[in-house]
Formats: sequence, structure tokens, C-alpha cells
Amino acid sequence: MSLQAALDALGDPVRRRIVRELAGEPDWARACGTFAHLPVAKSTLSHHFGVLRQVGLLEQRDEGARRLNRLRRAEFDERFPGLLALVVEEPEGA
Amino acid sequence: MSLQAALDALGDPVRRRIVRELAGEPDWARACGTFAHLPVAKSTLSHHFGVLRQVGLLEQRDEGARRLNRLRRAEFDERFPGLLALVVEEPEGA
Repeated sequence: MSLQAALDALGDPVRRRIVRELAGEPDWARACGTFAHLPVAKSTLSHHFGVLRQVGLLEQRDEGARRLNRLRRAEFDERFPGLLALVVEEPEGA
Repeated sequence: MSLQAALDALGDPVRRRIVRELAGEPDWARACGTFAHLPVAKSTLSHHFGVLRQVGLLEQRDEGARRLNRLRRAEFDERFPGLLALVVEEPEGA
């Protein structure tokens, strides 16, 4: 994964918010459906999850009708030290 | 300066290359005119320098007809730990 792809993925505020929310909870605790409070259309939300998955920030698995998420924090930290911490610690609404 | 502004500024490959080149040399050693080898128009290059300056990555001073540059590395590192290192260590052409 290139730095360009990582910066592109994290350049979107809604994607950073998804990352921040996932970072605050255990692996596989959040289904995609639990992000409906974010101020974007469902199709846009699906796109954001796809981008985060493609860039290696997110792992997903289906459990019944739910698509569960895991932030690949250790893997991403190893590739881009410090970058995820900046996102996780970003003040909400900044 | 917001994380959004920093990610936007560093999301451009030519701006990252300017940062990388400056990181490899002493403060104030490089004038803007010494970046003419970059594959963009002169006006675009001026825009890139402006963006880097606005986001706090760059300090500039005029010396005769030359505009000299200093990378504000320590200041940026304090605000966004790790981010500049990712850019400086990015392989050229990646």
C-alpha cells in the first residue's frame, strides 16, 4: 500500500470518523449498519467502507445479515507509524 | 492548523517531493527557482509552495531575487508526530 493511497483514504473526514469510532471499540464489535448516524447517504457510507478496506485499514466479515468490522491497527501502524494515532486523536468536528 | 489541512497539503505527490528535497538539505539552502526540474508549470509550483507555507510546513524569506525556503520540521513534528517522517522516507516515484 502506498503513502498516496493512505493519505487519500484518510483525507476524507467521514472516513476518519469511521476509523475513530472503530478505534474506540473492540474488534468486530461494530457492524456497518451502526454507522447510520453519520451525515452521508447509505451508498456513500458503503463507498467509504470500501476505500478503508482497500487501503488495508479495515477487515470485514459477514455474520448473518450484519457486516462486522475490525480496524487493522497494528498492521497499519507498522506500515505507517504514527499516522493512525493522528486520526484517532483528532478532535471531533475539527 | 487542522489535520485535514495537513493531509490535504501532503496529499499531493509534487508537494511531498518538495518536502523531501528540502528535508535533505540545510535550512535556507534552497531557493524556489531550484525546483524547476519538477514536472509542473511554474505557476503550479508557486501554488504548491503557497499551500505548504499556509499549512505551516514551510517558512520563506526573500534574499535579493531569490525566495529561500526552510522546512519547519520541528514545529510540524510537534503538531503531527510521525507524519513528516512518512513523507521524507517515502520512496521517490512511489
